[in-house]
Amino acid sequence: MKVYTLGGYEEVGRNMTALEFKGKVLILDMGVRIDRVMIGEDTNIQAMPIKELDRLGAIPDVTPLKGKKIVGVVVSHGHLDHIGAVSRMARKYKCPVVGRPYPLKLIASMMKEERKKFENPLFELHDSSITLGPFEIEMMPVTHSIPQSSFIIVHTPEGDVLFTGDYKLDEHQILQKPLSFPKLKKLDIRLLIIDSTNVMNEGITPSERVARTMISDYMHMIEDSNAGIVTTTFSSQVERISAIIREAENIGRKPVLIGNSLCKYYGLALEAGIVDTKVQMVRRRDAAMATLKEINANKEKYMILTTGSQGEPEAMLARMTDRKTPFFFEKDDNVVFSASIIPNPLNKASRYKLETKLKMQGANLVKNLHVSGHASREEHRKIIKTLSPEYVLPCHGFPDMLISMAELCNEEGYDVGKHVIVKRNGQSFDI
Amino acid sequence: MKVYTLGGYEEVGRNMTALEFKGKVLILDMGVRIDRVMIGEDTNIQAMPIKELDRLGAIPDVTPLKGKKIVGVVVSHGHLDHIGAVSRMARKYKCPVVGRPYPLKLIASMMKEERKKFENPLFELHDSSITLGPFEIEMMPVTHSIPQSSFIIVHTPEGDVLFTGDYKLDEHQILQKPLSFPKLKKLDIRLLIIDSTNVMNEGITPSERVARTMISDYMHMIEDSNAGIVTTTFSSQVERISAIIREAENIGRKPVLIGNSLCKYYGLALEAGIVDTKVQMVRRRDAAMATLKEINANKEKYMILTTGSQGEPEAMLARMTDRKTPFFFEKDDNVVFSASIIPNPLNKASRYKLETKLKMQGANLVKNLHVSGHASREEHRKIIKTLSPEYVLPCHGFPDMLISMAELCNEEGYDVGKHVIVKRNGQSFDI
Amino acid sequence: MKVYTLGGYEEVGRNMTALEFKGKVLILDMGVRIDRVMIGEDTNIQAMPIKELDRLGAIPDVTPLKGKKIVGVVVSHGHLDHIGAVSRMARKYKCPVVGRPYPLKLIASMMKEERKKFENPLFELHDSSITLGPFEIEMMPVTHSIPQSSFIIVHTPEGDVLFTGDYKLDEHQILQKPLSFPKLKKLDIRLLIIDSTNVMNEGITPSERVARTMISDYMHMIEDSNAGIVTTTFSSQVERISAIIREAENIGRKPVLIGNSLCKYYGLALEAGIVDTKVQMVRRRDAAMATLKEINANKEKYMILTTGSQGEPEAMLARMTDRKTPFFFEKDDNVVFSASIIPNPLNKASRYKLETKLKMQGANLVKNLHVSGHASREEHRKIIKTLSPEYVLPCHGFPDMLISMAELCNEEGYDVGKHVIVKRNGQSFDI
Amino acid sequence: MKVYTLGGYEEVGRNMTALEFKGKVLILDMGVRIDRVMIGEDTNIQAMPIKELDRLGAIPDVTPLKGKKIVGVVVSHGHLDHIGAVSRMARKYKCPVVGRPYPLKLIASMMKEERKKFENPLFELHDSSITLGPFEIEMMPVTHSIPQSSFIIVHTPEGDVLFTGDYKLDEHQILQKPLSFPKLKKLDIRLLIIDSTNVMNEGITPSERVARTMISDYMHMIEDSNAGIVTTTFSSQVERISAIIREAENIGRKPVLIGNSLCKYYGLALEAGIVDTKVQMVRRRDAAMATLKEINANKEKYMILTTGSQGEPEAMLARMTDRKTPFFFEKDDNVVFSASIIPNPLNKASRYKLETKLKMQGANLVKNLHVSGHASREEHRKIIKTLSPEYVLPCHGFPDMLISMAELCNEEGYDVGKHVIVKRNGQSFDI
Repeated sequence: MKVYTLGGYEEVGRNMTALEFKGKVLILDMGVRIDRVMIGEDTNIQAMPIKELDRLGAIPDVTPLKGKKIVGVVVSHGHLDHIGAVSRMARKYKCPVVGRPYPLKLIASMMKEERKKFENPLFELHDSSITLGPFEIEMMPVTHSIPQSSFIIVHTPEGDVLFTGDYKLDEHQILQKPLSFPKLKKLDIRLLIIDSTNVMNEGITPSERVARTMISDYMHMIEDSNAGIVTTTFSSQVERISAIIREAENIGRKPVLIGNSLCKYYGLALEAGIVDTKVQMVRRRDAAMATLKEINANKEKYMILTTGSQGEPEAMLARMTDRKTPFFFEKDDNVVFSASIIPNPLNKASRYKLETKLKMQGANLVKNLHVSGHASREEHRKIIKTLSPEYVLPCHGFPDMLISMAELCNEEGYDVGKHVIVKRNGQSFDI
Repeated sequence: MKVYTLGGYEEVGRNMTALEFKGKVLILDMGVRIDRVMIGEDTNIQAMPIKELDRLGAIPDVTPLKGKKIVGVVVSHGHLDHIGAVSRMARKYKCPVVGRPYPLKLIASMMKEERKKFENPLFELHDSSITLGPFEIEMMPVTHSIPQSSFIIVHTPEGDVLFTGDYKLDEHQILQKPLSFPKLKKLDIRLLIIDSTNVMNEGITPSERVARTMISDYMHMIEDSNAGIVTTTFSSQVERISAIIREAENIGRKPVLIGNSLCKYYGLALEAGIVDTKVQMVRRRDAAMATLKEINANKEKYMILTTGSQGEPEAMLARMTDRKTPFFFEKDDNVVFSASIIPNPLNKASRYKLETKLKMQGANLVKNLHVSGHASREEHRKIIKTLSPEYVLPCHGFPDMLISMAELCNEEGYDVGKHVIVKRNGQSFDI
Repeated sequence: MKVYTLGGYEEVGRNMTALEFKGKVLILDMGVRIDRVMIGEDTNIQAMPIKELDRLGAIPDVTPLKGKKIVGVVVSHGHLDHIGAVSRMARKYKCPVVGRPYPLKLIASMMKEERKKFENPLFELHDSSITLGPFEIEMMPVTHSIPQSSFIIVHTPEGDVLFTGDYKLDEHQILQKPLSFPKLKKLDIRLLIIDSTNVMNEGITPSERVARTMISDYMHMIEDSNAGIVTTTFSSQVERISAIIREAENIGRKPVLIGNSLCKYYGLALEAGIVDTKVQMVRRRDAAMATLKEINANKEKYMILTTGSQGEPEAMLARMTDRKTPFFFEKDDNVVFSASIIPNPLNKASRYKLETKLKMQGANLVKNLHVSGHASREEHRKIIKTLSPEYVLPCHGFPDMLISMAELCNEEGYDVGKHVIVKRNGQSFDI
Repeated sequence: MKVYTLGGYEEVGRNMTALEFKGKVLILDMGVRIDRVMIGEDTNIQAMPIKELDRLGAIPDVTPLKGKKIVGVVVSHGHLDHIGAVSRMARKYKCPVVGRPYPLKLIASMMKEERKKFENPLFELHDSSITLGPFEIEMMPVTHSIPQSSFIIVHTPEGDVLFTGDYKLDEHQILQKPLSFPKLKKLDIRLLIIDSTNVMNEGITPSERVARTMISDYMHMIEDSNAGIVTTTFSSQVERISAIIREAENIGRKPVLIGNSLCKYYGLALEAGIVDTKVQMVRRRDAAMATLKEINANKEKYMILTTGSQGEPEAMLARMTDRKTPFFFEKDDNVVFSASIIPNPLNKASRYKLETKLKMQGANLVKNLHVSGHASREEHRKIIKTLSPEYVLPCHGFPDMLISMAELCNEEGYDVGKHVIVKRNGQSFDI
């Protein structure tokens, strides 16, 4: 079996790994690297030509797969750095795209936006498995920060591969049960491909319950206030969005979701039966104007949940702050960031602009009511100990992160170079 | 009324403020600055001559009070930066020392260690008030990170003063009810003296519930392991210690407290009826040796809670790490730091030494299962808004912190320089 | 005498201080705060209405001067944070604007760009002095990072004031002799108003000779290369620009200045006789296109010096990098940043974009061939010791910088609060 | 040919690489990792048993060389991270130790301190070459921060190896001529082993001339003062020591070197004819007491150069600061740090203690009159371009540094994994 490390081996972003057995290739994730798009003037990925995305290093370079027979693409979860390139690159392979329902719905939605014909069948996997060429694929649900994230298990004639995708070990999510360790213990894994994004963080990643507690405490603290409350989080963080909606109701305010991507992710989650709380969703800009006018006149009755947690200039929060909508921030309005800043100078600058303007308008800022979705060092150790795989391939990280994962394996008795393999984009190896 | 800003106005540490009315002076808190002691070779505060402590800037300079009649010392809570100088400096005033029972017990214990005679009566205040000269004093319980922390309310002929001491607004502490806002609203405060340590943190400080969740989640994750579990936190953090004891019991291990200061603080809390869970406490070094030998032979049965969260070389955790005790760290033993590093190059170096050695011995480190005890910006805003005092004096902080508090007041409509007064150590002003 | 602290007392930027004697007011500097303009969408200061600049906090708030008789504005040097508001705000006072020739030329140029009539006479001061109402003004040349920087000495009936503006003590500038300490020693200063920007830097600021050495060493290192060399620095850093021009000639390349502001500052320096090396200057965009086409075809013959050291998207370097000009970066072209990044998230983001793109095009980046223009702690100490003024007013800095200067004075025997006065914008005091 | 990467491939420190041809092994450098010794209580390397050094990871693990025939040890220069393990580990190989005279003198001195018999002959190489088994060795002088640093060229039957040791490209050192590029161009290198310590620094490292300028400017600035001047730098930085001695003379003060290691390094440089300026050197503690007493009584006549730039508690500067010598710091004495802080929490803590105490005694601190001795990214690029070796092995660095060097090679057209080899300690590869 040959393993291709195509993307995410020199960066956080554009994840893509491939397994080859007798000339048949299975692709695991196919993502974009958004920070590379951000340095340009035009930042609409969907509208950029593939060539330009390639030039920017925003999508994986698939040259090593040239001439191979691609039997399928499996996606671990619905974040753009894992599925964002599917609608751009999978067309030429004409192979099926496999995953749990929610990420597939997101892919379908992106394909629709492209307005091109796709011949790729989309196969939803639940408890079943699917066979593509020599590979039999199973999904194993795990907690992360978007619904229906999964470990991908690939049974091959030369042993089983477990690809974690992104994950954390969280006992207290409401939309996703904890990872099943009894099942995990039964596996016999030859190769573990493991997310390294947060491995340098010594300890464990706090549970969603921590984010819920912080949000709830703040809302309780300002419960008596008649001022506006505007919250923002990552649009794909449906678990968090649900928590915020509940808190709005707890303090007697009506939650309203405003912004295209936020409504898309929550709407698809409703459609997929992941959540069932219906809530007012305002997706289009013109509708948003009317809604914001109404809210502005009755701030004490509503809680806005909107897009723009990174300060993105085109997102709704930045537009509200720039007084381009009929909602006007005043002294004592509350702006709650239930999101971290993705560490990148561009996001830092956007947030700095946004926060400076909000403060000048008198808003109270509450930052970091948030927990990460990526496992920390001790969670990874637990997975490695439990699986005890023959080989480990650290993925998804800048070189220092991959090396830190290799060192963790080394602590657990693995030889770096022999049984732990650190690769760069565009390389491959045989096991 | 004259106000003296004697300590904690240029630093985090050695807090001391005094109120004077017609020649009678009331002192609020009397703390030490421990990082100043740490730069020396001898770091035992109790054993150092007053003159040396003075030279190091480790205690407040009381020159401005020379010749005044001191009618009393009131302490807000039991941390050393608030009470650590009482046993060293209050003797000469012969005045009563007033506070809630727990901090007074701590003061009594320090006086005992000094082996000198004290003529200061210790007055425990519960719901009652006490009158000292022209000042009538009341305590108003508030959440912080040590039991029985209080706002101090001083009624004077020229209006009421509220001195916060250190605090946070925590809804979920088990040993202390939340601050009573209904009571707070009834007050008519002329001067608010407010802790500024954490005011630069935008947002709110997470609740103790967050620390409890993280500790519980980690313990659950390693529940199946037979390896050792050693936890450490601040000795005075009795709320946290209780939580760790409960978690030990939850996973079927026997909690053992090892280390002098840890046992002192928990023991006095038992004595004061603050906690009621009895637990094995090993205070003396020789006893610790025997206990650690027993634990080392049966690591899976115990959970150690010990001193040394800052890596202090003389504390038990450093001694265990240096293999000076019969407990030997092995591969997979867990060391849980339920404490932050107090940000100071000396602590960073000590922790670095400790952590490097622990890793070399194969221990798994879990860091930052902790929340701060100091209110963040929005909590302070809530207090200022609720009290709406005539004057505000930011205290307890480096100059940038005091100024940040002044700016917060400015946001709330106060004139800096007129109604918000920023002072340095050794200064005074009249209101 | 009353002193007004109007701008630069809570920030680095928008400097403005005023002296009042018997109702007559003299203004010292009148600058803008550029980072406040940058958060908006339109960032052209000249084109923005005064009201908008005011709302953004980009210009000093002159409310405290309402109804006063303004007898003159004196400027210390030509940086925008010291003169940038003159052309916007001085018109209404109709008073003379006084300074050395170079900053006045810059002000004249800005007035011209405004296309409005000014009634303010511009008075150039050389060795002479000028009397405006009760104030007699003298300029005392000092080294900084723009030609003709000066200490301003104001003789008043109540004693002499020395306003440093920005400065450093540099023994090795080519365009400006070192500060005259013999003259300084003869002064009898009542109030010293001193730049605090860099006082937290312990030690001394390196001389321009250091920048020259580093630039020269790098040019020597790549002397054999035929690749392109593009350098960039602050447009107003005429001393540095001269050094780069000399180095181009040393390695046998023709220096070409490209970009509007660069040519403006160097051109005015030529006009003022400050420099005498004529050099090709390309100011207009269309001319730049032709020149860059020629250079692109003969990269080995030229050294480009251009605008955009902060990564400003509209500056020439960013435009070249975005392939909007006929100069195309290739593998091994050299880009030399003889400038620091002004520490602000917006500049960091712009530079990050620029650098990422340059690296993707194969350019070799050389950063930080630069020294600061602001004195460090020991230089300030030298000035304070030499002058031994009665009062010190720290200016030009965020609060932590002003306080650090106050602490330096305290080390030199001054009482903070009595003889060292720390103020905020919009305040005033009497001496 | 086989290459062993034994030390310095996971850290800055304990450098050791070995070349094997037909069972014969040549060792390149043999250093210690001092920060690993520092975490212990006993920090005297010379006195620690080899086993303990091994346990701490303070010396290279030579297990992979077991049973091999060692034909020689060649040292690139005299820093402890390159030669510090020779006197501890070379004895058992009984092979010759080869290098330029200065590092060999340092090794001889360490062997002497061990008081054990050595059978290793020491071979001084000047312009000559030496043959050890299948290896012919030549030294090629290069600039660094200790006298007589060299590239090591090893001619082998399978092509030539160039081992850079530590270096920078400095045109302005007084004790060492610049690297000869004409000679370099004539080489035909199969494998380049290159120092990666500072490769992440984009640009070039400033020349010693920059340090000289800064030192000279500060001395000139305080020339009139009668206060004490105490300078400190790295003991092995003989070039810098010479510059400081000259500056003392320039301002009419007598330079005195105080401290054991400082006198050792300077004394051996005198002995080797590297420097010829004789200067008062006080090596022993009792002599130092007398000298410091004399200096204390006549501070204006002397300039002290002493040990302890990292704040080491046992070094002379810390002892003077702790008032353990008859030299007492007073208001306005100057302490000049012509050294960086080696970035490690322990050094930061020591320097923090030292600086805090010095400030409390009224000294003026001048920090960072220093330049690094390690080449930056563009210097490395120049070497790689000039040599155009077939293979590159990044050495001397933490993993992120080695990877950054690999990326630099990648920019220059090398395939990472094929022609650029990134290894960990204890590994080997064939070329």
